[in-house]
Amino acid sequence: MFPAAPMAGYDRAITIFSPEGRLYQVEYAFEAVKRGMTALGVKAVDGVVLAVEKRSSSPLIEGTEKIKKIDTHVGVAFAGLFGDARVLIDQARVYAQSHRLVYGEPIPIELLVKRICDIKQVYTQHGGVRPFGVAFLFAGVDRAGPHLVQTDPGGTYLRCKARAIGIGAQKATDLFMKEYREDIKVDEALILALKALRDSMEEGFSPENIELAKIDVYSKEFKILSVNEVAELMKKL
Amino acid sequence: MFPAAPMAGYDRAITIFSPEGRLYQVEYAFEAVKRGMTALGVKAVDGVVLAVEKRSSSPLIEGTEKIKKIDTHVGVAFAGLFGDARVLIDQARVYAQSHRLVYGEPIPIELLVKRICDIKQVYTQHGGVRPFGVAFLFAGVDRAGPHLVQTDPGGTYLRCKARAIGIGAQKATDLFMKEYREDIKVDEALILALKALRDSMEEGFSPENIELAKIDVYSKEFKILSVNEVAELMKKL
Amino acid sequence: MFPAAPMAGYDRAITIFSPEGRLYQVEYAFEAVKRGMTALGVKAVDGVVLAVEKRSSSPLIEGTEKIKKIDTHVGVAFAGLFGDARVLIDQARVYAQSHRLVYGEPIPIELLVKRICDIKQVYTQHGGVRPFGVAFLFAGVDRAGPHLVQTDPGGTYLRCKARAIGIGAQKATDLFMKEYREDIKVDEALILALKALRDSMEEGFSPENIELAKIDVYSKEFKILSVNEVAELMKKL
Amino acid sequence: MFPAAPMAGYDRAITIFSPEGRLYQVEYAFEAVKRGMTALGVKAVDGVVLAVEKRSSSPLIEGTEKIKKIDTHVGVAFAGLFGDARVLIDQARVYAQSHRLVYGEPIPIELLVKRICDIKQVYTQHGGVRPFGVAFLFAGVDRAGPHLVQTDPGGTYLRCKARAIGIGAQKATDLFMKEYREDIKVDEALILALKALRDSMEEGFSPENIELAKIDVYSKEFKILSVNEVAELMKKL
Amino acid sequence: MFPAAPMAGYDRAITIFSPEGRLYQVEYAFEAVKRGMTALGVKAVDGVVLAVEKRSSSPLIEGTEKIKKIDTHVGVAFAGLFGDARVLIDQARVYAQSHRLVYGEPIPIELLVKRICDIKQVYTQHGGVRPFGVAFLFAGVDRAGPHLVQTDPGGTYLRCKARAIGIGAQKATDLFMKEYREDIKVDEALILALKALRDSMEEGFSPENIELAKIDVYSKEFKILSVNEVAELMKKL
Amino acid sequence: MFPAAPMAGYDRAITIFSPEGRLYQVEYAFEAVKRGMTALGVKAVDGVVLAVEKRSSSPLIEGTEKIKKIDTHVGVAFAGLFGDARVLIDQARVYAQSHRLVYGEPIPIELLVKRICDIKQVYTQHGGVRPFGVAFLFAGVDRAGPHLVQTDPGGTYLRCKARAIGIGAQKATDLFMKEYREDIKVDEALILALKALRDSMEEGFSPENIELAKIDVYSKEFKILSVNEVAELMKKL
Amino acid sequence: MFPAAPMAGYDRAITIFSPEGRLYQVEYAFEAVKRGMTALGVKAVDGVVLAVEKRSSSPLIEGTEKIKKIDTHVGVAFAGLFGDARVLIDQARVYAQSHRLVYGEPIPIELLVKRICDIKQVYTQHGGVRPFGVAFLFAGVDRAGPHLVQTDPGGTYLRCKARAIGIGAQKATDLFMKEYREDIKVDEALILALKALRDSMEEGFSPENIELAKIDVYSKEFKILSVNEVAELMKKL
Repeated sequence: MFPAAPMAGYDRAITIFSPEGRLYQVEYAFEAVKRGMTALGVKAVDGVVLAVEKRSSSPLIEGTEKIKKIDTHVGVAFAGLFGDARVLIDQARVYAQSHRLVYGEPIPIELLVKRICDIKQVYTQHGGVRPFGVAFLFAGVDRAGPHLVQTDPGGTYLRCKARAIGIGAQKATDLFMKEYREDIKVDEALILALKALRDSMEEGFSPENIELAKIDVYSKEFKILSVNEVAELMKKL
Repeated sequence: MFPAAPMAGYDRAITIFSPEGRLYQVEYAFEAVKRGMTALGVKAVDGVVLAVEKRSSSPLIEGTEKIKKIDTHVGVAFAGLFGDARVLIDQARVYAQSHRLVYGEPIPIELLVKRICDIKQVYTQHGGVRPFGVAFLFAGVDRAGPHLVQTDPGGTYLRCKARAIGIGAQKATDLFMKEYREDIKVDEALILALKALRDSMEEGFSPENIELAKIDVYSKEFKILSVNEVAELMKKL
Repeated sequence: MFPAAPMAGYDRAITIFSPEGRLYQVEYAFEAVKRGMTALGVKAVDGVVLAVEKRSSSPLIEGTEKIKKIDTHVGVAFAGLFGDARVLIDQARVYAQSHRLVYGEPIPIELLVKRICDIKQVYTQHGGVRPFGVAFLFAGVDRAGPHLVQTDPGGTYLRCKARAIGIGAQKATDLFMKEYREDIKVDEALILALKALRDSMEEGFSPENIELAKIDVYSKEFKILSVNEVAELMKKL
Repeated sequence: MFPAAPMAGYDRAITIFSPEGRLYQVEYAFEAVKRGMTALGVKAVDGVVLAVEKRSSSPLIEGTEKIKKIDTHVGVAFAGLFGDARVLIDQARVYAQSHRLVYGEPIPIELLVKRICDIKQVYTQHGGVRPFGVAFLFAGVDRAGPHLVQTDPGGTYLRCKARAIGIGAQKATDLFMKEYREDIKVDEALILALKALRDSMEEGFSPENIELAKIDVYSKEFKILSVNEVAELMKKL
Repeated sequence: MFPAAPMAGYDRAITIFSPEGRLYQVEYAFEAVKRGMTALGVKAVDGVVLAVEKRSSSPLIEGTEKIKKIDTHVGVAFAGLFGDARVLIDQARVYAQSHRLVYGEPIPIELLVKRICDIKQVYTQHGGVRPFGVAFLFAGVDRAGPHLVQTDPGGTYLRCKARAIGIGAQKATDLFMKEYREDIKVDEALILALKALRDSMEEGFSPENIELAKIDVYSKEFKILSVNEVAELMKKL
Repeated sequence: MFPAAPMAGYDRAITIFSPEGRLYQVEYAFEAVKRGMTALGVKAVDGVVLAVEKRSSSPLIEGTEKIKKIDTHVGVAFAGLFGDARVLIDQARVYAQSHRLVYGEPIPIELLVKRICDIKQVYTQHGGVRPFGVAFLFAGVDRAGPHLVQTDPGGTYLRCKARAIGIGAQKATDLFMKEYREDIKVDEALILALKALRDSMEEGFSPENIELAKIDVYSKEFKILSVNEVAELMKKL
Repeated sequence: MFPAAPMAGYDRAITIFSPEGRLYQVEYAFEAVKRGMTALGVKAVDGVVLAVEKRSSSPLIEGTEKIKKIDTHVGVAFAGLFGDARVLIDQARVYAQSHRLVYGEPIPIELLVKRICDIKQVYTQHGGVRPFGVAFLFAGVDRAGPHLVQTDPGGTYLRCKARAIGIGAQKATDLFMKEYREDIKVDEALILALKALRDSMEEGFSPENIELAKIDVYSKEFKILSVNEVAELMKKL
């Protein structure tokens, strides 16, 4: 492969189109996502689950949480640049709180996702900045039911049934294609998510290296599972 | 083809003219539109219809709506970058609401289109930004009757009778050239739009992968059809 | 032709002089004008007329008006980028209305033209923007009589007797050189304008593809002719 | 001549010095002046005169006035870019009127010239702008008597006795060197200016292609001569 | 190694992604950290310790402290650019004081770290600035117990058990991998830190060239040890 | 000498250091000074004198004054770009007047010089501007006695006894080295200045082509000499 | 040495890291310091002394003071660009006065140094400016005793016992390494400083070409010695 020839500089200036109408910088930001550790989500009829690999690079470093709660009814997992993710997650929390204050009710999931995508889009069109090198999986429950929504570095979002991002995305997706059913329940979704994560991790599949979260339509509470709870679920596998 | 030689850099700096008086970045933004999924519209004597392909890239992802209501009397379909489209659609909604507040009546369609084109033009003339990589088809009804108007990345708009944009535009236009009549009625226009979309889609022509919307001069209500309604219409084909 | 050698980069940075004291970007913007559809004007002793080609690229697209009224006593035709033209025409209307409000009388034509040229000049001198790729023909009547004034992308304006811009400018000018008389009347000027437009259009010379406008010193009303009126005039040809 | 080698880029960035301490951009702006049509002035003991060539590029275009009145006691002729000139002339008029308002008397000629040079200097030193490509000859009378002052693109001004700028400057200057006398009167100065203009114009020396203006210390009124008056003077030649 | 070929300029513009989704400028800033003098930390069950090499380049220059107290309950060690470190440490002190004023209690360690990482992230995404060339080891005690957290130039942070940064990081880490135990006490951690520092320093291992600090969960006081105290500890080695 | 090789671009970006720690843009600005007409000053025990060459480039152009009064007790001569000088001289006058208003006494000479150097320094360190291409010789008397101070384009100033700048600086300095005495009186200094100017001018040494100014500690009035006074002094030579 | 190859552009854009994590522009600014005239300082148990070479380039120019008092208890010597130094010294005086006003006591020396380093650091990290090409030696006495602190262009500072900067730094340092004792008294330090300066100056070692300053813990007054006092000390050498 000789990428330098056909691209000829269109991939270096942030905010310009290539002759084929592509935005290379946004595509390269996707590469940062693809190199991130695997994150995945499964939407059930009565809730949503998120699962991520948080394997540490050394036993002396504690793995960093990669599932974050945004508000009681919504959380997020990500793949890509940690620093970029943190900035947008903080912003998402501010939007969620502002909405509660102004409207007296939890922010609808899609509205929250749109606000984050607004920020991402701006960083693909204006000079002097680079796109955010991170993709999110938002999981939440609002009046319209459960939601699993993915955002990408270009500011696009996709409503998903089952979705994996990061370095193991392909293997996890292969499993989803075989085993996902539209009538899946949250408890089953947790097991499916664990299986997909196991397939996508080359080594180190253990409760310490994994994070799981779920939200169901009954409690409407986004909950990150403890290491013990993860271990319990693993036994069922 | 050896594009690098004759262009010699004029296509890389956003806001400059080439020696032939062309703005390459705007032309490349058109390419982003051409690579988008097909969107089309047909103006009838008593209304307008829009139709888009919203085929999803995976059965695990729900197709994203690509027809959006702006106000009760006007909606829009688009081809091109999803993130760019969303930013301008939000802005269109703000203009429409402001007009209602200030003048106590729905915004005229052409005025709305002009405001969106003002934004697009600015992004082709000023440094530090790229043009918007999206084209719209506005469909609406105001005092002057039904309107189908296309905007392009350069800030130009065209009043159309039947129009298709995106990857299948040529095939849909071929059908329009053969079958469009100026005295077409809204109900017939829906069928014509469906036929054009079928011609332009290589596969997956089914109610789930299609969106249809219509507005007529009697109700003046922009309405996105349900999957069942689309399925009913397909049977008539 | 080997333009790259003698120009050597002076044509790429907007706001700098070449060693010969030329501003290449402004000259390239002229090229955008030259590639636009033909627009022309003829000044008579008792009025002014404008004529433009508005041939559509497809029968499914309604041709866009390219003659615009600015105020009751003045209108404009243009050749070049549609989006650029619209921005300046809107600005011209604002100037005209402001003048009426402040001074209680119609804006003098030359004052209006100067304001538009001020904007154009700024865009040839400051960094981060490109010149406007559009030329105008202003036609109006004020206390000093009828006026036909052309503005160019560099912010210069010329008071004209008969003038054509755009892709067919040369052929129209050839006719003017032969047939224009200083004592021409408005009604004769309409015929002369039609003849010049016919010469400059390679095909499609029909009432639907043409716009005509006139203003005379008696009514002082700028009037765009209907398709029927254009058809009537064509018969006289 | 091989200018590309010794200059090597110093002439491309607007606001930098070359190794010899030269500002190429300012020198290139001088070239724009040198390519302009000839303008000249002659200071007499009792007044000043200005004369310019305003030959039109086409019989269908009315020549543009290139002598402008700034205030009752001062006017200006220019060579160079028309658009640039107009911006500065408008500014000069604003300064002149402001001075009258604040001090209740006509603006001294040198103060007026300084203000214009302040603007010009700024445009030679700041990024993102180019120098003004225009030179002026100010002619006026104030308490200190008659003044003929030239400004150049670099913001420098010269008090002159007889001065020509533009494409025919050299030929006009040759005549001045032979025939100018310090005790010249305004009426003689008009004839000398006409002779110098005739020498500098290759063709088209006729009352329609020439503008003449004068101001004397008795009336202190800057007056642009009519075509008839110019024709009368030509007969005396 | 021939880095120039594969990188091809992606490492020179600050805020852009390479085709593989990497941010070279951030990676180069890590190099500045790696060239800094060694700093390390060890988390114990009842506290945290920091140790740094502060060997001076000349006997005439007093070594500069490289462990700084932020607030009574938290301190920091760093490797990398001294000037960059100071700016961020000052900012950290401001955050800590503001938190005390507003909430009446010490700032939680992770919140403090996040604020510093927010600043660092911004400097990796916006044009016109470079990333901070410094890594920190924060050591503190809050309600959640003892914390050892590392931040890097990209705005990421890692919660660590034992961690070394700077030029001797590898040798110190080798020792930690062999001798670190999760149930280590502060007093033992001091000895372990000293041993790791001795391993990582090629010469000059003496009380004058070393800084040690500790904080335990009983006093919750961050304390930098005196030269005598360091000497005492060394004897135990 | 082959300057292009060792400089390799360091002279093109304004505000950067070359590998040897030099600022080429500032050095090039010095070249603009060196090409200016000679200006010189001589400090006496009881005053200061300034002398400049103001030879005109043409007999039809009156030479421009190059000695300017700033306030009653201080004046300035310059060599370099006329337009740059004018901007700074205007600023100096503003500083002098402000000081009188605020403190009720004439501005100390060194304070005035510092303010001008502050402006000059900023233009050597910030992007988007070039250094001022002018050097000044300030001559004034304040409580501390007479002062002769030179400023250069880099913002440095030198307190001088006798100093020459511009194209004839070397020849004038040669004379100063031979004939300057520390106990010189103002009247002698005038003669010494004239002699130095004569040495440095290749031709045209006459009262019309020279400006002289002096200030003494008795009157504390900065005075520009008339042509007659200059002629009188020349006779003494 | 062939610097162009390995650096490959990393030394031209101010605010970026080279692949080895170096900031070349800051290193080049050090070169400006190394080319400056020698400045040195010696800390004694009961005070500090500063000594600088102020040899003038001509007998007609008075040497410029290069030791400046900041406040009664602190002064500074510098090597490098005079204009840059002045800007920072003015700022240091403002900080010192503000501190007195707000806290009613002299500013601690290290706090003053930090503020100056904050400014210097900003100029190494942000675009559009260059680093300050100057190093300082601050000498002062506060509650903590005598201080000698050096700042460099990168915003780092070093607390020193004896330190020399500028072109003769190496020779002076050689002497310090041989003769400096920690128990040195101020009076001895003056002699040591003089000896070091003599070693570092190639010629012109005389009272007129030297500046000496001292501050002791008894008077806490920063005092610049007169030429006579310097001459007296020289005799003791």
